[in-house]
Amino acid sequence: MDKYKKVINELIQFRNERDWEQFHDSKNLALAISLEASELNELFLWKKDSEVENVNHEKLKEELADVLSFAFLLAEKHDLDIFDIISEKIKKNALKYPVDKAKGTSTKYNEL
Amino acid sequence: MDKYKKVINELIQFRNERDWEQFHDSKNLALAISLEASELNELFLWKKDSEVENVNHEKLKEELADVLSFAFLLAEKHDLDIFDIISEKIKKNALKYPVDKAKGTSTKYNEL
Amino acid sequence: MDKYKKVINELIQFRNERDWEQFHDSKNLALAISLEASELNELFLWKKDSEVENVNHEKLKEELADVLSFAFLLAEKHDLDIFDIISEKIKKNALKYPVDKAKGTSTKYNEL
Amino acid sequence: MDKYKKVINELIQFRNERDWEQFHDSKNLALAISLEASELNELFLWKKDSEVENVNHEKLKEELADVLSFAFLLAEKHDLDIFDIISEKIKKNALKYPVDKAKGTSTKYNEL
Repeated sequence: MDKYKKVINELIQFRNERDWEQFHDSKNLALAISLEASELNELFLWKKDSEVENVNHEKLKEELADVLSFAFLLAEKHDLDIFDIISEKIKKNALKYPVDKAKGTSTKYNEL
Repeated sequence: MDKYKKVINELIQFRNERDWEQFHDSKNLALAISLEASELNELFLWKKDSEVENVNHEKLKEELADVLSFAFLLAEKHDLDIFDIISEKIKKNALKYPVDKAKGTSTKYNEL
Repeated sequence: MDKYKKVINELIQFRNERDWEQFHDSKNLALAISLEASELNELFLWKKDSEVENVNHEKLKEELADVLSFAFLLAEKHDLDIFDIISEKIKKNALKYPVDKAKGTSTKYNEL
Repeated sequence: MDKYKKVINELIQFRNERDWEQFHDSKNLALAISLEASELNELFLWKKDSEVENVNHEKLKEELADVLSFAFLLAEKHDLDIFDIISEKIKKNALKYPVDKAKGTSTKYNEL
């Protein structure tokens, strides 16, 4: 079994042992992703550019794992293959951000 | 090559063709995760319980892909294996949320 | 002195006594607003419609106060009158959401 | 009438003319605050320290107004005086962040 399926199974087992599927509607899963993303961002709050990579590595791992866990559960709920949806989105983004216009600039596509 | 490495390579190629690595410090990648998570949440704004699963499936795919893309790029920047960090976190969460206390309740661990 | 000026002065005094203005660039203040907004949202995580108003009132007060505090500090940094900018925005929103189209629907303006 | 009451009345009139109170439960109002805070943060995405104050001033006004509008509506729903709750929170924060420990550092209170 591949690593993705293995970790999805672990997440589902953890959830089911606690009878938590009842709480995991799509809206609350999306909210959970957002709240975990904020905890990840809190590691960087008030940091200047020069300090940004001096982040607590252990906490970064944990918060990023939390974001990914809820994202994987939301994908699984909607029968989405996370790798396929990313590949598809990269193709769409390539149209929004053509190399000749987007190269070296962080301007948003609608202002390019 | 496995699907995870393949999609990471696609993300890196997309980034490098546009010379965007200069913008991708850890703080801004974390912020990008959060902003994409908010766009995902916007799909559910004002929806009542009964309407929550009637979400625009195409947009959900795209916004979830955006969250995952920036999460993968942050993991790659820190040489983290996304599957390993999730498995580790599940083990930690099992201590914070023992089945006998956490079963069937959405109470946070520090109030269990 | 009016209550708004009084509370702004309290916020500034608190900040200056701790020599924290050095951290309060606009980007970090905006991030702080977002992180406090997430703590506010955490009070509602996993709650169904019927439970939503059974929120911990004391915590709601504190988290909402945190959101407002950083929002006031960002407004003050940019010499913005919070009441004027809201009134102006209401006028703009009235054009985006004309009563005859927007009445009784939560549809976003670009899909009305 | 003071400016705060005046703007609250404008917000309520705008909401009622559109029959939107039905959507404004506390959970969705909190989510709306968070989504508007993210739009505010998007103005700063990818910006380095030296660029942070070169923000689009007009958009900053609008996004900050949106954050404040939903925060005011949530406060109003819970009969909270925004100035009183901020003053109370400043007093609590003074205990969490005593000047002698917190001066000149951005360390969080639980690590001071």
